[in-house]
Amino acid sequence: MRHVVPQRVADGRDTSVAGLAARAAAADTADPLAHLRDQFDLDEELVYLDGNSLGALPTSVPSRLREVVEQEWGRGLIRSWRDAGWWDAPERVGDRIAPLVGAAPGQIVVGDSTSINVFRLTVAGLRAAVGRDPRRTELLVDGTTFPTDGYLAESAARLTGATLVPCHPSELVDRLDDRTGLVLLNHVDYRTGELWDLPALTAAARGAGALTLWDLSHSAGALPVGLDRAEVDLAVGCGYKYLNGGPGAPAFCYASSDLQDRLDQPLAGWCSHADPFGMEPEYRAAKGATRLRTGTPEILSLLSLDAALDVWADVDLAEVRRKSLALTDFFVSCLDALAPPGSFRLLTPREDGRRGSQVALECDDARAVMATLERQGVIGDHRPPNVCRFGFAPLYTRFVDALTAADALSTCLRARVGIGRA
Amino acid sequence: MRHVVPQRVADGRDTSVAGLAARAAAADTADPLAHLRDQFDLDEELVYLDGNSLGALPTSVPSRLREVVEQEWGRGLIRSWRDAGWWDAPERVGDRIAPLVGAAPGQIVVGDSTSINVFRLTVAGLRAAVGRDPRRTELLVDGTTFPTDGYLAESAARLTGATLVPCHPSELVDRLDDRTGLVLLNHVDYRTGELWDLPALTAAARGAGALTLWDLSHSAGALPVGLDRAEVDLAVGCGYKYLNGGPGAPAFCYASSDLQDRLDQPLAGWCSHADPFGMEPEYRAAKGATRLRTGTPEILSLLSLDAALDVWADVDLAEVRRKSLALTDFFVSCLDALAPPGSFRLLTPREDGRRGSQVALECDDARAVMATLERQGVIGDHRPPNVCRFGFAPLYTRFVDALTAADALSTCLRARVGIGRA
Repeated sequence: MRHVVPQRVADGRDTSVAGLAARAAAADTADPLAHLRDQFDLDEELVYLDGNSLGALPTSVPSRLREVVEQEWGRGLIRSWRDAGWWDAPERVGDRIAPLVGAAPGQIVVGDSTSINVFRLTVAGLRAAVGRDPRRTELLVDGTTFPTDGYLAESAARLTGATLVPCHPSELVDRLDDRTGLVLLNHVDYRTGELWDLPALTAAARGAGALTLWDLSHSAGALPVGLDRAEVDLAVGCGYKYLNGGPGAPAFCYASSDLQDRLDQPLAGWCSHADPFGMEPEYRAAKGATRLRTGTPEILSLLSLDAALDVWADVDLAEVRRKSLALTDFFVSCLDALAPPGSFRLLTPREDGRRGSQVALECDDARAVMATLERQGVIGDHRPPNVCRFGFAPLYTRFVDALTAADALSTCLRARVGIGRA
Repeated sequence: MRHVVPQRVADGRDTSVAGLAARAAAADTADPLAHLRDQFDLDEELVYLDGNSLGALPTSVPSRLREVVEQEWGRGLIRSWRDAGWWDAPERVGDRIAPLVGAAPGQIVVGDSTSINVFRLTVAGLRAAVGRDPRRTELLVDGTTFPTDGYLAESAARLTGATLVPCHPSELVDRLDDRTGLVLLNHVDYRTGELWDLPALTAAARGAGALTLWDLSHSAGALPVGLDRAEVDLAVGCGYKYLNGGPGAPAFCYASSDLQDRLDQPLAGWCSHADPFGMEPEYRAAKGATRLRTGTPEILSLLSLDAALDVWADVDLAEVRRKSLALTDFFVSCLDALAPPGSFRLLTPREDGRRGSQVALECDDARAVMATLERQGVIGDHRPPNVCRFGFAPLYTRFVDALTAADALSTCLRARVGIGRA
């Protein structure tokens, strides 16, 4: 992989590679979050722009997992459910995630996959909506959603008798009416990286008498979410993207304190029972976020996520957001400067307020382009048919990474349009 | 903790502590599975009879998990989904479990909790039954089941419109009729340790036109199951009990090759899609066991289970069963010999053919009794109201452990009935 060597240039807006390199170096030097990269175990030579698929390994994880396996499991055995705090870990880790998404304690529980939790909360949300008003049998679903949310929403609608109505987020306000029970939306579009206005759309749904369920997979850990302030009803989020919990780390569920004790969820198991060790034949739902648990949590994956959250101890989310926008803006500037005109089409909005923490673009042969970049040590990902997606995890991504990736991509695009490098 | 020192006695049937100790020592010496204990990281001083709640730590796990975390996650990052075989791990680990439960390859997938999988397969099984014959809307559920199975079965019945009929396994044959769609049964009762006749009950259900769903939580890894031979339709099993996968290790789902391509499961997510990376808006179910996946698997927990399965490489399940029965029989013999008459009531059948791999008994103040034993380094567990439960994991439990536990329990029971030790 070719690394760009920064050079001094007179004009900060110089759009030569050298000029861009100087801007990257200056931005990295000034970055108040730069020191956080040391808390991740990343190869210096790798440009990793796929933290929105799998977050990098926090240095706090390996030693903690060794302790969990060798001491808590090996020595403590079954006693660790009590003595090592395994039993309460779903609620305890949930309370650690809470400040990252603007939630007061007691509203988040961690466990199972995002998909399972979309199903759980869609059914619970539809039941709550119909319970308040029997006419509210419609489920409005973001038609641009990550497919699994759509599949599970369809299954939930089919099982509860609700009517599924696909709807683009931009049309939501016009589609809300007195039949709308629940609205399932993505905070950031997994494909384009477009950020939707969570407070405004939540307020619109609430104003129309509907409940909201937000999928925060591409926002939690990348930007401030503000669930409580926006009066969101329900949310799910991913543990393995910007929260760096490890491959397939469990997801999290949020239910507002107003709503949670009225929720009737379909995956009611022994761990969501009011007296889980009572082994009662009749189900009685626990109070609080515990009501959203099901079976025995996958402790190794859960405690990896727990350890991974250490990195957030003193992090200011406003700073994270500033850096995220600066990184994605800089990446787009680099592409504008370096890639042949017309060789790509940007899918991600250029306006700061409409952008999450990724940049997506369309180009010919996107799969082959991303494979070429991977061979050069620049990791992003491909989404069919022709989308190249680059995620900028603000805790460990550097401005120089953005430039290196844009330069490598531009070189690749230039080669494909038959223009040799000067 | 007091360890019993084996002494030679003339008569092998001597029921003094010394006589029992000699029998234990002889049985341990003759045990063809004794060497397997070295493949577990167990404290020598601990008598661990709770492998039916959480299996002991296999020595193969820590180094493998280190590799998964530090190399596959840390170095490989997102590429490990492809390069380290993460993507196919649910099917691959399923195929490793298959011979332990008598299943040909391609019928088992690993992931999510037992509870989630009970829900998944109950809904899928009910739909398959009604699909064949619309009258078959009844779900017969083992009324003695671990509560979570009952809760999830109730949720599945409610969502699909099926009628839930609780039924004791001993009454099953009389309760089957042409309305029975699906039968949900436990192979071994979690509380009493009673083993039900899986081939006979499966044949009865099949003969009556019903599908079967077996919960193997307390049999997989403890005794031969023979799913294919018995023509079982559906099954779930636990990864963290006798399979030693670690705390909350994922469960497994079995669907017979005859049935699997007709299954319509409620937790259909992107990982069970025919083209998971196609990101298609419409759901199309994958072929084979993959159809029973949902979202991203919790890789650390899953690969811990994978590593834990190494211990089974050359293990003969018939030998496992022989040792399991010998251990539980010996434990009961020790209690008969050492505990005051009338101080406990055995819940587990004495007949070999009706016993799983645990011994359960009722006594006064069972909770306090088990706490006393724990302080002495004898770990079993308590189930309300007054059940003491001792699991005998045949791969690492010794006959001397059975005697030490029975002796400690008898001493405790003797103290409670006011009879001092001679």
